[in-house]
Amino acid sequence: MTGRLTVIGLGPGDPRWLTPAASEALAAATDLVGYGPYVDRVPHRQGLVRHVSDNRVELDRARHALDLAGEGRAVAVVSGGDPGIFAMAAAVFEALEEARPAWAGIDIRVEPGITAVLAAAARLGAPLGGDFAVLSLSDNLKPWDVVVRRLEAALAADFVVALYNPISKARPWQLGEALKLAARHRSPDAPVSFARAVGRPDEVLRVLPLAEAIAAAASADMATLVLIGASATRAIGGPDGRRFLYTPRSVGRMP
Amino acid sequence: MTGRLTVIGLGPGDPRWLTPAASEALAAATDLVGYGPYVDRVPHRQGLVRHVSDNRVELDRARHALDLAGEGRAVAVVSGGDPGIFAMAAAVFEALEEARPAWAGIDIRVEPGITAVLAAAARLGAPLGGDFAVLSLSDNLKPWDVVVRRLEAALAADFVVALYNPISKARPWQLGEALKLAARHRSPDAPVSFARAVGRPDEVLRVLPLAEAIAAAASADMATLVLIGASATRAIGGPDGRRFLYTPRSVGRMP
Repeated sequence: MTGRLTVIGLGPGDPRWLTPAASEALAAATDLVGYGPYVDRVPHRQGLVRHVSDNRVELDRARHALDLAGEGRAVAVVSGGDPGIFAMAAAVFEALEEARPAWAGIDIRVEPGITAVLAAAARLGAPLGGDFAVLSLSDNLKPWDVVVRRLEAALAADFVVALYNPISKARPWQLGEALKLAARHRSPDAPVSFARAVGRPDEVLRVLPLAEAIAAAASADMATLVLIGASATRAIGGPDGRRFLYTPRSVGRMP
Repeated sequence: MTGRLTVIGLGPGDPRWLTPAASEALAAATDLVGYGPYVDRVPHRQGLVRHVSDNRVELDRARHALDLAGEGRAVAVVSGGDPGIFAMAAAVFEALEEARPAWAGIDIRVEPGITAVLAAAARLGAPLGGDFAVLSLSDNLKPWDVVVRRLEAALAADFVVALYNPISKARPWQLGEALKLAARHRSPDAPVSFARAVGRPDEVLRVLPLAEAIAAAASADMATLVLIGASATRAIGGPDGRRFLYTPRSVGRMP
């Protein structure tokens, strides 16, 4: 029997953001493969085998999932958010380039999920009202000068910028540097949001002026999505007194 | 009684991509406000009042929705995809800047949805494996020179580029121009995808070399999401013979 492998996005954490299509794919799986905290989000049921791994071994994990599917299993590789955005889908296709004979015939699918930038934006208001760029700030897989060049390009062209993987113990200074770069293209009071663990019980949303965000960079962590507004992005008071962040849809001529 | 207004993302069309949170918000609504084809996606039920409008009057529609909520109704403003991405959420906050007294106290929420670029990427494989930029190609709300400047910036910095609203009867030449711009930064065989109506019965996915995509630009329409690969994005054969598009996670030094 030919197996299958579905790479599934679990969304940011709130089970109400898990799509029915993703739920169906999980229900059809015989094996779950993923980083521990994501696998833990899937309820236990009889016959579902769990294969938990560390977060730094994506390619090994992808090969393992393909080996299981090659044996005829129905494998679900689980990612937080959307599996195509700085998550497992690309690792699976990288592994597939090895084209091992044992993998022949496997049915490969990807199930999208609500990614962190969508969840954070929804909570904040409508900060993505205009064009936006999404970058991983991790320099594990790309040189820091590429990060800087992309960030500069996006800021100079006045995109809203979303930063994934902004900071970790191994990369403590990159977010501060990125925000200092932003200060060359945005005013000191341009709004920056740190949206942490959106959709989970420990969710924290903060909107700070850029100058304060630079000083507060060390308070972000790997569960934080950082949004740097475009020049027109602004905070407004809502009708019930809450504050919202939004980017007007109209853009004038650029300076 | 104070009303509420929830801006809801219906996803790309397949109801299995509608999140449970969005379904709950729809079930709690007394009034639906939106562009006809989106309102039509929500099943009829007793007591649910439908307010259908044309697609070009976002701000009027937002004011109307706020007026209804100001009267104490539970209003759902529906958008395809995610409401924060080139859809109704920003229009609602723009209207809110008018701060009309009748709107005081309204509870405003945004419910995220699977946006077209996530759905298209999932169907294609993992084309967003690296950093990416999302632009609307419409020059209704921004001058064409801003579109060009942003597109140039994103292409030069080797982002994957997703184009929303690529073409319409009123804007027939913009996509061709954008793809010709891409040809200054990508090789003629760089993969370009036209992903039309993803998740709907009339879904069509095409991956073309950039040179052919330029010639085929007129075949896209407003339901098409156009993806221009980064320099490393490539098409590979999957284990069951299907073709996939993916962007490797690792980036070398840029030229």
